[in-house]
This record gives sequence, C-alpha cells and structure tokens, in this order.
Amino acid sequence: MAAAGFTRIALGVEYKGSRYRGWQRQASGVPTVQEVLETALSRVADSPVSLMCAGRTDAGVHACGQVVHFDTQAERSLKAWVMGANINLPPDISVTWAKVMPAHFHARFKAVARRYRYVIYNDQIRPAHLAEEITWNHRPLDVQRMREAAQALVGTHDFSAFRAGQCQAKSPIKKMHHLRVTQHGKMIVLDVRANAFLHHMVRNIAGVLMTIGAGERPVEWAKEVLEARVRRSGGVTAHPFGLYLVQVEYPVEFVLPERYIGPHFLSGLPELAADA
Amino acid sequence: MAAAGFTRIALGVEYKGSRYRGWQRQASGVPTVQEVLETALSRVADSPVSLMCAGRTDAGVHACGQVVHFDTQAERSLKAWVMGANINLPPDISVTWAKVMPAHFHARFKAVARRYRYVIYNDQIRPAHLAEEITWNHRPLDVQRMREAAQALVGTHDFSAFRAGQCQAKSPIKKMHHLRVTQHGKMIVLDVRANAFLHHMVRNIAGVLMTIGAGERPVEWAKEVLEARVRRSGGVTAHPFGLYLVQVEYPVEFVLPERYIGPHFLSGLPELAADA
Repeated sequence: MAAAGFTRIALGVEYKGSRYRGWQRQASGVPTVQEVLETALSRVADSPVSLMCAGRTDAGVHACGQVVHFDTQAERSLKAWVMGANINLPPDISVTWAKVMPAHFHARFKAVARRYRYVIYNDQIRPAHLAEEITWNHRPLDVQRMREAAQALVGTHDFSAFRAGQCQAKSPIKKMHHLRVTQHGKMIVLDVRANAFLHHMVRNIAGVLMTIGAGERPVEWAKEVLEARVRRSGGVTAHPFGLYLVQVEYPVEFVLPERYIGPHFLSGLPELAADA
Repeated sequence: MAAAGFTRIALGVEYKGSRYRGWQRQASGVPTVQEVLETALSRVADSPVSLMCAGRTDAGVHACGQVVHFDTQAERSLKAWVMGANINLPPDISVTWAKVMPAHFHARFKAVARRYRYVIYNDQIRPAHLAEEITWNHRPLDVQRMREAAQALVGTHDFSAFRAGQCQAKSPIKKMHHLRVTQHGKMIVLDVRANAFLHHMVRNIAGVLMTIGAGERPVEWAKEVLEARVRRSGGVTAHPFGLYLVQVEYPVEFVLPERYIGPHFLSGLPELAADA
C-alpha cells in the first residue's frame, strides 16, 4: 500500500538490455536498468524514487512491456512523468506510458501472467544486423519438432529442470499457459505465457527446443528433461539477446494503457494473440 | 578486367553501419567497412585484397545487399571465402555469398540500378529498441501526403537540389525508377530505385518527404525543391541510421546468388517488389 500523502504510479517501460547487467540494482558502478530509470525519475520528481518491477529480467534480456510502480509525493502530470523520464534516459530505455494506480496495486505481486518472446534467426550465414536483438542459430531447425516438444511443457509442472542454480523463487511449480513456436521467414519465434517464471526458465527451454529442432535429441527429450526435475548438463542456456519480456497481465480491475499490449518493433512478427 | 592469372570474385556483403565512417577507406585509425573487410579477406587470401564496391555508403548507413569484387591469385573454394571472411569479421559485418565472375564484371560500373530503403518509426514516444536501425520521427506523418509528393521525383531529373556539397558525381541527372512510401504499423518505409544516386540523395529526399508528411510544407514543395536545382537551407538531411542499401542490380548476363534479393531482417516489412 502507498503511504498517506503518496501517490502510486505505474509506468510501462521498454529497454534494449544488451549493455545492462539486468533489471535489478547492484553494487555501484554496475549498469542496471533499475538504477538508470530510478535516477531519471528522481530528477523528474526532484526527490528519490524507488521502483518495483513486474519481471526482474536478467543480464542482456530486453523488454517491451515491463511494468513498474513507485510511490511519490511529487505532483506531476502523467505526460510529465513520461516525457521527463525519456529526456533523462539513454537511447536504450524508454517510458511508454504512466498511470495513477490505486494504493493496493503492485507491479510484481498483482501480476497474474507474464509473456516472453524468444527470437531466433535461423540461417547458415551469421547476420550482420540485429546482432544484439536476436539469437543466431546456424543449424537448420525443424520447427515442427520444436512445436511437438513444446507441448510437453504446457500446463502446471515442477520446472526445476529449467531453473538456474541461483534462482530464488519459493516454488518451482509454475503454470505455463502456452508455448508456441512459429516461423516467419528465417525467424523462429517462441511465445510463452505463464503465471510466473523461474530464473533462466525461458532461455533453458529455448536451449532444449533448439537442440531438439537441430535433431540432436529426440522430440521426447523435452518431457524427459522436465520429468527429471534436475538441471541437466546437456541443456544449454540460450543467449539472452533473443529474449524479450513482452507483456505483464493484471486483473481487470487494473486497466492499463493500450500501448502495453505488446512489442511494436520487429513489426512483421505477429501480434500477441488474445489468449485462451 | 582482371589481370592474367587472377580470378575475379564477387561477394554479397551486409553491414550495420552505425559505428563506421562509411564504406570508403580513409586515413589509418578511421573505422570504415572497406578497411575491415579488406583486412578479413586478406587473411583468407594470405595476400592483400583490394575491394571495389557497388555503392559507397556514407557514415552510419547500413547495407543488406552491398556487392563488391576483387581480383586474387589465391585459390579458395567459394565457401572458404564466405566462411573464412565471416570468422575474421566483427559481428556487424558479414559476407553472405561469393561467386566467380567473368573478368569484365565490375561491381560499380556494371551496376544498372541500386535500391535503397529508408525506415522511419513514427510515434510520439521514443523507442528503446532499434535506436541505430531506424529513424525516429515523433511528428505524426501523413503517408498519403508523402506518397503524393514522392511522385514528383520519379523519372529522369537533375537532382542537384538533393545533392550534398561534397558530392563527386559527374552528372546530377539520374533516373529514378520508383519512390514508394508504405506504412506498416508505426513504421513508414521509403523504397527507392534509381540507376545511381548522388551523395546524401536518399537522406535529403527523406528529409523533404518527412517535412511534407508533418504538414510543415505543402505537397508541391517536393517539386519546387527539385526544380530549384540548388540545395536549400530548408531541407534537412535525414539521419543515416534509417538508411539501407538493399539491392544492386546487374545485367542478366551476371547471375548473382538469390540471397542478394533483399533485406532478410525487419522480416515483417514487405519484400522488395519485382520492378516495372
């Protein structure tokens, strides 16, 4: 709850994560998205701003639809929060909207689902473009095999096998609503939606699906890995540069601006589908 | 003509130009695409390689379909030229194909048409993604006005009004085959094809069209600028980061690999149309 006299404000945030050590503020001198954004907002507020975010993205991971909130006594228009922040931010971070929220809103604890998108560029030749925005895989990937393997991971499972050693989540049991594999020319896109994610979970899943797509493991391997419930040496954690936090979903009582609906860049890729 | 004992080889090259001072080799210590690519190929050849390119792109300008040629006594497979070069190149330059060409092929002088694409991201909010790959314009642009204005520039004209002061072309008269303006969500794309281009020509045209699209000048202004035949103070040279050399065309006797057909990235954008 926001304290008396404070207003709780939510922001939509997008960033190119490649030069940051992830979202979360670390020791002084380590570049993080949180630190840069808090500094910019503190200038607008003319007082210190502390942020809570919906999804603590890892080093190198990008976001189109990050949601954060903060409490402030500063009185600013919503436009002033957005424009003021963007003037004080570097080119790779921007605030896309601002909204006054009820005091019981919480960017992290009220979120009911997160969506991530993982973008693979599949070609024998290394692309010179988007080196920090996509993951290049030179092995020909069979999308149909990846799609079949993905089905084993949908539903409520213990995802310990896809969890990083340093993960601090209380429970490894998560509900994965969908894990879709689509192809768009040489781009292969994984769209995944779950109530919450473990540390490295999407990248570990991407690593397993690419290994299966390359024919190095059978389709059934995804299910075997899941059921083993231990992080295997065979599973490669896919590169962070292909990964985007694209959307965070909240109960309908918290109506968030429409811009929040998804990635506007890579415009040829499909919009996020309304979900079942 | 390649000298006796030498083989003439053409390469397809793509690069993200943002950290280079353009294609053309300059004084030592100035980063250029030519220097980096010649160094990489010289390692593969184990002897000095000098390149001739189809289109000398300016500082910051990108390429998907650059074509270069060189003469060498080194005997390497085509795959070795491609893979060997790419191993020795930084992530923002890659060779996409190699082909042995007849001795009278010339990447620059045999080219009959070049295509450039200019990509604008039109939104009030500064995007955090693709900061070096697109040009952000926050003024709402009227695509229909831009499209109408563009028509005045199609055909054979004296393009002196769109020529940079330092341009070294012998003649300002060029034949513009088409100048198409299309919209794809928040992206506005200019596709232009001409027999050749003057220095800064596409960026100066983009600057004029954006000014007209923003309603700051009437649609007829494009024609007025063209007919004045002098570079006007009012015309802004658009930022290089939105510009791509996407294709170079040669007479049918020089069959080049299919990969040469266009930009594979920004995959949602339309493929280059077959031309009238």
